[in-house]
Amino acid sequence: MHKLMIVSRQKAAYEALFAKQPIAGLELTQKPQEATILLADPPKVAPLLDEFPALEWLQSTFAGIDALTDKSLRQDYTLTNIRGCFGQLISEYVLGLAIAHQRHFATYQTQQRASHWQPHSYSTLAGKTMVILGTGSIGSHLARSAKALGFHLVGVNRSGTTSEPAFDTTLPLAGLNSALKQADLVVSTLPATSGTNDILNATSLGHCHKALLFNVGRGNALCETGLLSVLDSGAIAHAFLDVFKQEPLPQSHPFWQHPAITITPHIAAESFPHQVMAILRSNAERWMNQQPLRYTIDFQHGY
Amino acid sequence: MHKLMIVSRQKAAYEALFAKQPIAGLELTQKPQEATILLADPPKVAPLLDEFPALEWLQSTFAGIDALTDKSLRQDYTLTNIRGCFGQLISEYVLGLAIAHQRHFATYQTQQRASHWQPHSYSTLAGKTMVILGTGSIGSHLARSAKALGFHLVGVNRSGTTSEPAFDTTLPLAGLNSALKQADLVVSTLPATSGTNDILNATSLGHCHKALLFNVGRGNALCETGLLSVLDSGAIAHAFLDVFKQEPLPQSHPFWQHPAITITPHIAAESFPHQVMAILRSNAERWMNQQPLRYTIDFQHGY
Repeated sequence: MHKLMIVSRQKAAYEALFAKQPIAGLELTQKPQEATILLADPPKVAPLLDEFPALEWLQSTFAGIDALTDKSLRQDYTLTNIRGCFGQLISEYVLGLAIAHQRHFATYQTQQRASHWQPHSYSTLAGKTMVILGTGSIGSHLARSAKALGFHLVGVNRSGTTSEPAFDTTLPLAGLNSALKQADLVVSTLPATSGTNDILNATSLGHCHKALLFNVGRGNALCETGLLSVLDSGAIAHAFLDVFKQEPLPQSHPFWQHPAITITPHIAAESFPHQVMAILRSNAERWMNQQPLRYTIDFQHGY
Repeated sequence: MHKLMIVSRQKAAYEALFAKQPIAGLELTQKPQEATILLADPPKVAPLLDEFPALEWLQSTFAGIDALTDKSLRQDYTLTNIRGCFGQLISEYVLGLAIAHQRHFATYQTQQRASHWQPHSYSTLAGKTMVILGTGSIGSHLARSAKALGFHLVGVNRSGTTSEPAFDTTLPLAGLNSALKQADLVVSTLPATSGTNDILNATSLGHCHKALLFNVGRGNALCETGLLSVLDSGAIAHAFLDVFKQEPLPQSHPFWQHPAITITPHIAAESFPHQVMAILRSNAERWMNQQPLRYTIDFQHGY
């Protein structure tokens, strides 16, 4: 019998789901020393990793597992994350904010408070070019949703190729600047790895022309001072940021009161417990049957 | 040679487009008595109709032609409207506002002003049921866009059938109440006809359960006191209104300051001159060749 321990701010929700529908061959434990399997939020479990001597497999409750890939931490277990459930939420976030901006919703809200009827001219989003950095499950889902709304899609990834047909063009990271030149919208879905640190900086973003920038991947990808300078120059017209180098974003941070920055508190996508449990359940069956797990992380690559 | 006169608040834009690319067999006139063809905004031309004795065909610059179907006005000419260009804009409007509401964007905007980091829980729009009244070109385009975002689509129209495959179910108007019972979102794209007056009222909307209501068709379809009562009862959670019985909405109107009503000043879709000119051009060619025009209006039906 494998022993599962849950280390998550949503522990109660996961335990309730587990109680309602147990997983054969797996029982819950509250004793770290006997847990062979962990279902855990990476930032919460990272400082506690050494308390689990029997750990064999850790199923992350998040997509982002960078809290666990730091070289100073143990890497003697199998790490899996969750995928497939975030594309829809990220699509809603990006498309909703893009439309709200393009169609002046905030202006109409202000006008409504003053009982003021004043139409403003606008253009459609159809035909605009969205450059998506990262063509994994999130980037591909976003590409499909954006395609249905009439966007032209350019993907940027390591290889410069993708099997997702929604992308009209795919470029390798070496072609980032030429992708950014065409962008009306830039969306980073990149994971935090050593290769993505500050990839969006004053130089790369300087190739944009009044583009809208979305960061829904990880805060490390965006150089913060670089963003301020391209907002000044107008290369970026507005930035929508959900992830930051430090979270929560410190109260004194200049982003908060910048008129061309929209801040959301890391809500672009959320792990819904029932979706996480479905992945744990499926992976647990594979684990019992000595089959390869889904969504395994390579500690070297960091994704 | 046919004589075209333009009666529109965008007259200058249309004349510039015409000058740039003339239409063979058609010349512009500023003399009402010799105009055989009008390109006109319905509310602007309606009180002037009798000044055009030679009028044979009127190409509306709007989709909504109800200003011209009043029984007291002459109907001895061919009336065509524009279609096909509004679906995209209406889709952006409905999906953008629905996402902004569902994902608490206004709350995050308020929090940002206070440099306050506070996530709020939410659910996805995927799997929600959108009931669309009217399955014409606008309703069908919206259905396709909403389908791509994961909505379940129910169409309601006169016949109860549609050739648009994005609708999962189509019901006749007689089944409106049963459609509204299932609705998470209700969108009216209905034209103003005698059959649509106050079709959304306290009784019909009373079948909803905390639904979001969008009116992007015509103001006549919504009973205003009925809406206030279903907002009170909770049958409708929030209403997004772009069209009204009286426009501009009078300053003293109770809708302006209602916390569960979002007002926009008839901007959900806009006639872009280059799109209108493309339809005029195509219809003018048909007119010269004695072929049937596209998008003709039946004065009896009002659409």
